[in-house]
Amino acid sequence: MKFILKKINKRNKARCGKLATPHGRIQTPFFMPIATKATVKTLSSEDLEDINAQIILSNTYHLYLRPGLKVLKEAKGLHNFMNWEKPILTDSGGFQVFSLAKINKVSDEGVGFSSHIDGQYHFLTPEKVIQIQNVIGSDIAMCLDECVKLPATYNYIKESIERTTNWAYRSLKEKAKLGNKNQALFGIVQGGVYKRLRERSAKEIMDLDFEGYAIGGLSVGESRSQMYKVLDYTAPLLPENKPRYLMGVGTPDNIVEAVKRGIDMFDCVLPTRNARHGMLYVFSEDFAKNRKKDIFNFKKFYKIVRIGNKKYKTDFTSLDSTCDCITCKNYTKAYLRHLFSVDELLALRLATIHNLRFYLRLMERIRETI
Amino acid sequence: MKFILKKINKRNKARCGKLATPHGRIQTPFFMPIATKATVKTLSSEDLEDINAQIILSNTYHLYLRPGLKVLKEAKGLHNFMNWEKPILTDSGGFQVFSLAKINKVSDEGVGFSSHIDGQYHFLTPEKVIQIQNVIGSDIAMCLDECVKLPATYNYIKESIERTTNWAYRSLKEKAKLGNKNQALFGIVQGGVYKRLRERSAKEIMDLDFEGYAIGGLSVGESRSQMYKVLDYTAPLLPENKPRYLMGVGTPDNIVEAVKRGIDMFDCVLPTRNARHGMLYVFSEDFAKNRKKDIFNFKKFYKIVRIGNKKYKTDFTSLDSTCDCITCKNYTKAYLRHLFSVDELLALRLATIHNLRFYLRLMERIRETI
Repeated sequence: MKFILKKINKRNKARCGKLATPHGRIQTPFFMPIATKATVKTLSSEDLEDINAQIILSNTYHLYLRPGLKVLKEAKGLHNFMNWEKPILTDSGGFQVFSLAKINKVSDEGVGFSSHIDGQYHFLTPEKVIQIQNVIGSDIAMCLDECVKLPATYNYIKESIERTTNWAYRSLKEKAKLGNKNQALFGIVQGGVYKRLRERSAKEIMDLDFEGYAIGGLSVGESRSQMYKVLDYTAPLLPENKPRYLMGVGTPDNIVEAVKRGIDMFDCVLPTRNARHGMLYVFSEDFAKNRKKDIFNFKKFYKIVRIGNKKYKTDFTSLDSTCDCITCKNYTKAYLRHLFSVDELLALRLATIHNLRFYLRLMERIRETI
Repeated sequence: MKFILKKINKRNKARCGKLATPHGRIQTPFFMPIATKATVKTLSSEDLEDINAQIILSNTYHLYLRPGLKVLKEAKGLHNFMNWEKPILTDSGGFQVFSLAKINKVSDEGVGFSSHIDGQYHFLTPEKVIQIQNVIGSDIAMCLDECVKLPATYNYIKESIERTTNWAYRSLKEKAKLGNKNQALFGIVQGGVYKRLRERSAKEIMDLDFEGYAIGGLSVGESRSQMYKVLDYTAPLLPENKPRYLMGVGTPDNIVEAVKRGIDMFDCVLPTRNARHGMLYVFSEDFAKNRKKDIFNFKKFYKIVRIGNKKYKTDFTSLDSTCDCITCKNYTKAYLRHLFSVDELLALRLATIHNLRFYLRLMERIRETI
């Protein structure tokens, strides 16, 4: 994997560049739609092509449980399995173990958990997580880290980042052992909202020389201003010539603010989950039509349309006249509202296509501005 | 509407022809995917274009309840509302009133029922059903008829066909009053499994001179051989120069047998409903590859794949190598099985696309053979 930093915005720390992977190049900064169980919920790989997704994220925890490693190995990896030819990033499964699994018990060795599906006991180590991602064949793999829910005490997080550093070291060693040149490995900086711990974690993870660095443990219960503050002092600690990934973030505002602080990569369930609840993102007209306006100084550049609202019952205009997705080009708000009100599954797909296209257009606009 | 009969098969009564409608021409015999609530479940109008659907069927009962006439009127009809530019046939709503509604009470005037959604009382008359379909703007409308579940007594059906004839007469009168030249109206022959009643119903409905004729009240509890017998004596009663529609039928075998008996039009929930239950239609290899083999003399020309079966877990071949749908071109059985087993909605759409394409390919093959 190769990262080329092309430009840094003059008035803030926003960066744009190119990330070359074994499955093609990606323009940064970018957003990754989430394909939890080898599909972005309701969408086919053709749909993802149509909205011009550059890369998707899939979840190691879910893939490990189902379809399982045997199937993925015989399929020759996730790209083949789901017929997606562009880049894939996989998370480590850590976040799901700590949030989804019924029971989980963390030790220095790894983390034991009961599957949320059948209660079966599994034990993940940093080594095993690298092995699993090696079978999945993602372009970018993540180290196993401990995800601490906020608020948490200074001492607990201190202990946790020691473990995360140790796991990062073991992950790199396992990767070297497997010798897979087609998969980049990213380290994750933890440390909660404590500056000293973020600094310490960053230093320790930098020392290990990964191909990219992620900031984890945000968007897990802290306030927006706390998150921005952590980014303010953490992003500058990361090397300039490596991609920077803010995990699990966030709203369109969050993304703009994080880009301003020097972040290159994002993923979040919001556009897809909100779509399935009939909450649809639309750019403000002013913003959409004045492409020269600076996104970094724009207040309220979008709104959320609750398509179930009665007022759309006979609204035969498209959701967003500036949007190029099939939902906006072919269907009206009245039709979308009807599909949601009669529980037709097409509603979920059309809404998902639109919301993801909104996020991808947002990233295109951000890249233009930089 | 104009029907041109091009050819009648030499060895049986199978016919092929062309039906010209305000929204384009249709090759007969044909199958209509069912778009109950203004969408074929899980599919967009683009998906229907992709599988080469010539015409779809939508349900007057469901559209009347939701989105309702106000919305459909302001949308300027169903074609606009759902962005479908090809022909649409609407049923009369009669079948749903008799099968879905909580309470229904039939009288000579019409049929009263409680909505299956909110229990609200509605009263449909033959005139009202014509008015509703006029607002929907379908290319082909159906008369309100009484659908009797079989088995039923001779006397009950006799009384019922008298009512159906009376309703057919009133439907034609209402249509003349509305003067909509862009909508054809079909009459429906009832009579259960009683030859004398079918003959009587056919005679009475023929006397009224519709633009096409349907055989109703089959596939409602009788045996296959009873159904074929009814077709044997009923189809020849219908005028040769008008299209013949067998309502709600059926399995691929049923369709082949009915085509042999001179039927031109079909609709059925089987391909879409079975798809959502992971039951996928696949042509036998022998049949698919030998395009010259006569479909009318073929035993077992297809099978049903239960994709949830364990044996497909690592089957990385496509469902049907001869099929041109996106499901077969882009995905494997192992991937489809995975999607069904983790309850991903993409499973339902990919399965629906394939099963409908199977039915449409079946009709293409039938037309070629004739």
